[in-house]
Amino acid sequence: MSRYAFGVDIGGTTVKLGLFDSEGNILDKWEIPTVKENNGEMILPHIADSILQKMQEKSIDKNEVAGVGVGAPGAVDDNGFMGGGAVNLGWKPLNITEIMESILGIPVKANNDANVAAFGEMWQGGGRGYRNMVAVTLGTGVGGGIIVDGRILTGANGAGGEIGHIHIEDHEEDACGCKKHGCLEQYASATGIVRLAKRRLAEDDAPSVLRAGEVSAKTVFDAVKAGDEVAIEIARRFGEYLGKGLAAVANVTNPEVFVIGGGVSKAGEILLDFVRPAFAKYVFTPCSNVKFVLAELGNDAGICGAAGMILR
Amino acid sequence: MSRYAFGVDIGGTTVKLGLFDSEGNILDKWEIPTVKENNGEMILPHIADSILQKMQEKSIDKNEVAGVGVGAPGAVDDNGFMGGGAVNLGWKPLNITEIMESILGIPVKANNDANVAAFGEMWQGGGRGYRNMVAVTLGTGVGGGIIVDGRILTGANGAGGEIGHIHIEDHEEDACGCKKHGCLEQYASATGIVRLAKRRLAEDDAPSVLRAGEVSAKTVFDAVKAGDEVAIEIARRFGEYLGKGLAAVANVTNPEVFVIGGGVSKAGEILLDFVRPAFAKYVFTPCSNVKFVLAELGNDAGICGAAGMILR
Repeated sequence: MSRYAFGVDIGGTTVKLGLFDSEGNILDKWEIPTVKENNGEMILPHIADSILQKMQEKSIDKNEVAGVGVGAPGAVDDNGFMGGGAVNLGWKPLNITEIMESILGIPVKANNDANVAAFGEMWQGGGRGYRNMVAVTLGTGVGGGIIVDGRILTGANGAGGEIGHIHIEDHEEDACGCKKHGCLEQYASATGIVRLAKRRLAEDDAPSVLRAGEVSAKTVFDAVKAGDEVAIEIARRFGEYLGKGLAAVANVTNPEVFVIGGGVSKAGEILLDFVRPAFAKYVFTPCSNVKFVLAELGNDAGICGAAGMILR
Repeated sequence: MSRYAFGVDIGGTTVKLGLFDSEGNILDKWEIPTVKENNGEMILPHIADSILQKMQEKSIDKNEVAGVGVGAPGAVDDNGFMGGGAVNLGWKPLNITEIMESILGIPVKANNDANVAAFGEMWQGGGRGYRNMVAVTLGTGVGGGIIVDGRILTGANGAGGEIGHIHIEDHEEDACGCKKHGCLEQYASATGIVRLAKRRLAEDDAPSVLRAGEVSAKTVFDAVKAGDEVAIEIARRFGEYLGKGLAAVANVTNPEVFVIGGGVSKAGEILLDFVRPAFAKYVFTPCSNVKFVLAELGNDAGICGAAGMILR
């Protein structure tokens, strides 16, 4: 009888791991460093070792483990194959499921980390109770994870939900990290907000607290909360881009809820106040009945969603 | 033992019906008029009567029918409920599945007509062999149907795949039928192409065969085939908009194939030649490996997909 599952969230610096009971409660969580040398060839063996150690420590037998869920930074298809590898880990194309199962002798499921985190938020976080949702991560970049009828939208080769690279602005001269121009990520990520802020500040000499010191997504939204008019204008431009992008996503997938997470979302509810009106302006009316909520699981969304792929 | 299924495609003027064997072969197809008076209250009873008559005519017993699939023009949720009714039929909110099952005593499944047609193209048309596809209908408007992992993406209230209303142009003064501005449908539908053509022709006096007679999507693409430079420029603008919109769709759903149908697609392969380069320009590279093919089932896509929801 399966009483446990493991959730694994592979990042560029550390791998997060969690042991869950069959109800989805976290019994234990820990981290190991991500060893990237030799094209990251030891990453998966290290994870497997760490899981086997934990099982020994807790006297858990293999037949008590329902499986291991894994989130990885890149496109992962439904068979666990990463056809494009994972740049941040040094990985060439490989099959996570095959490698892990051959070491562990336990069933493994893998998916893209943003998709897995989205699944976690649906299972235990801001998206609880919904079966059609889109998780949006506003961090260094803009990530997305889409849940359709309770299942992760993986896509043909695991690149579903790449909403950060929707083209949203025809008149952009700077290139995005993906080498195209005018991607949503160029305006709605932490670095995108700084870009918007610097551009706005350069437009004129209007007074703003943002002119003193380093500008970041946090200082922009702190200034918004303090009533700084220039900061409010920057937040409006941010909201206009994000609302426009999410309207396109809503027209395609017709979700019940957007769950907004990532570092930028620490600004709190005020951030959503800038997104909702722009979204309403661009979305097709039959797709407009969507809630906007903040993510709740923070850094645990990945391990939680990974375990959820096994348990739910 | 179930040997048959019916497929029903409800349009604003006629209802198309088909009788299929369990292998998906069309045994018979016919039409009845769509009687819209009294808020279209007789449409579903008429369909049910027509199916019962056909069963009598062919000596088919109820227990030989696996079910009836229905495509309807509007948002239909997974329970067969149309919360927004159907403007073209005069329908207020109603539940297709409940009404039809209560008359027929046979299982009924319903979905949006564009989604159902997409399912048909996957089952027996241009999308055969694929499990992740997007069907695009370029007709009076622009419709979409999205198949994820072999299943219709219905969405929260049945409005998934409404790709015609993705905002694609910030500088549009004319309103779309949906009352917003700059929707894909304003450029990539039959009427959208005429708009693009008229705008281009008004820009200067460059010679073009399009200056003689009525302009339509057909005359534009006929002129393209004849090498008319102005027509080629119009087709490029059309391709730019459609490619940009479909790139957003691909980033969200990561399909293997776009199946392009509807009246405009009668232009043939040359139409795809204008879409592919624009798509490549805007799509996120991991989502870029997508084929573009023409739809194959024409007017039978609806009844075929409707029966497919039952049989497949």
